[in-house]
Amino acid sequence: MIFSSSLLENAVNEFAKLPGIGKKTALRLVLHLLKKDVEQVEIFSNSILKLRREIHFCSHCHNISDKLLCNICSDRSRKQHMICVVENIRDVIAIESTQQYNGLYHVLGGIISPLDGIGPDQLEINSLTKRVAEEKTGELIFALSPNIQGDTTIYYISKKLKDHPVKITTISRGIAFGGELEYADEMTLARSISNRMPVENYVGTNKL
Amino acid sequence: MIFSSSLLENAVNEFAKLPGIGKKTALRLVLHLLKKDVEQVEIFSNSILKLRREIHFCSHCHNISDKLLCNICSDRSRKQHMICVVENIRDVIAIESTQQYNGLYHVLGGIISPLDGIGPDQLEINSLTKRVAEEKTGELIFALSPNIQGDTTIYYISKKLKDHPVKITTISRGIAFGGELEYADEMTLARSISNRMPVENYVGTNKL
Repeated sequence: MIFSSSLLENAVNEFAKLPGIGKKTALRLVLHLLKKDVEQVEIFSNSILKLRREIHFCSHCHNISDKLLCNICSDRSRKQHMICVVENIRDVIAIESTQQYNGLYHVLGGIISPLDGIGPDQLEINSLTKRVAEEKTGELIFALSPNIQGDTTIYYISKKLKDHPVKITTISRGIAFGGELEYADEMTLARSISNRMPVENYVGTNKL
Repeated sequence: MIFSSSLLENAVNEFAKLPGIGKKTALRLVLHLLKKDVEQVEIFSNSILKLRREIHFCSHCHNISDKLLCNICSDRSRKQHMICVVENIRDVIAIESTQQYNGLYHVLGGIISPLDGIGPDQLEINSLTKRVAEEKTGELIFALSPNIQGDTTIYYISKKLKDHPVKITTISRGIAFGGELEYADEMTLARSISNRMPVENYVGTNKL
């Protein structure tokens, strides 16, 4: 792509560094912003800069936060004895958006994946076991990716916590709502049969 | 989507205002930038702000430019008697990227479209006819969208220039390279037959 303006070229190149954004899409986005008022472009530009400069990670659960302690950890109306263990902050947003969970979180910052060079020490596992011991957590709910790495992580943490009287659960796996049975992969279908549940549990969707 | 940080929410909302970017994609882009160093986010953020604040439109051809006169208009090695008329600056970039055209441009800023409320007065048509008269332009090449609005614009400008000794041409229409004949629409196929060209012209791709 040949540009007649280096200012335009720089902006397009910066946008094209974003994941999933090619040069043509970057150009479309930049030209869209160029049509806006200077004030609107300032608001756009400052929103990301302010986020990057002022963001904190909650000292307690490692979720993204405006303050040292995030909104969720500082909300005393949430169930303090229940911790949902997730991989990253995107998962927190996804679970919060269901409005079905009313406990606390713990963001690991990844899952154990030796092939990618990620071992337990790079994750927030020690701070989790410390929390469980100090806060006398009643239940730990694992909401990790349904793959070998996720299962390894659950197994590793469960073993570390075997001397603590904490109930350890994982979110249910199975056929997704709206999913067609015939297109489900064999492993999911096999597991959903072996992990079958009583219909009375299935019907009730009580908020946790 | 429920966020635990208002800084994150603002940034995601700003990105989601961009065309073709939904909330989930916006979140992915923002979290990507959040992982970068502050300096890199500053470069990203400043690139668009600097562009918006400092950009000019060439006083001659209305192309986007860092200066009052764009690189193309101020390049005396380009053929000064040939003007390619395009709808917007994206088209200039597209034609420049082919590296096949060595004349000047004129950006209309749109095409005549009464349904969208765009008449000849909103476009840079008067400045074009003035240029043709003053610069004694030899050839005007229309590179507009192949639709009714594009054809109307060509017809309107051609009529305004009927007293000038300028050769008026349009880029060729037809079946695209790599396009399958059987999937071409009837109008394109019919036109490509009636506008058929001698094979010797077709084979040579001489730079203009």
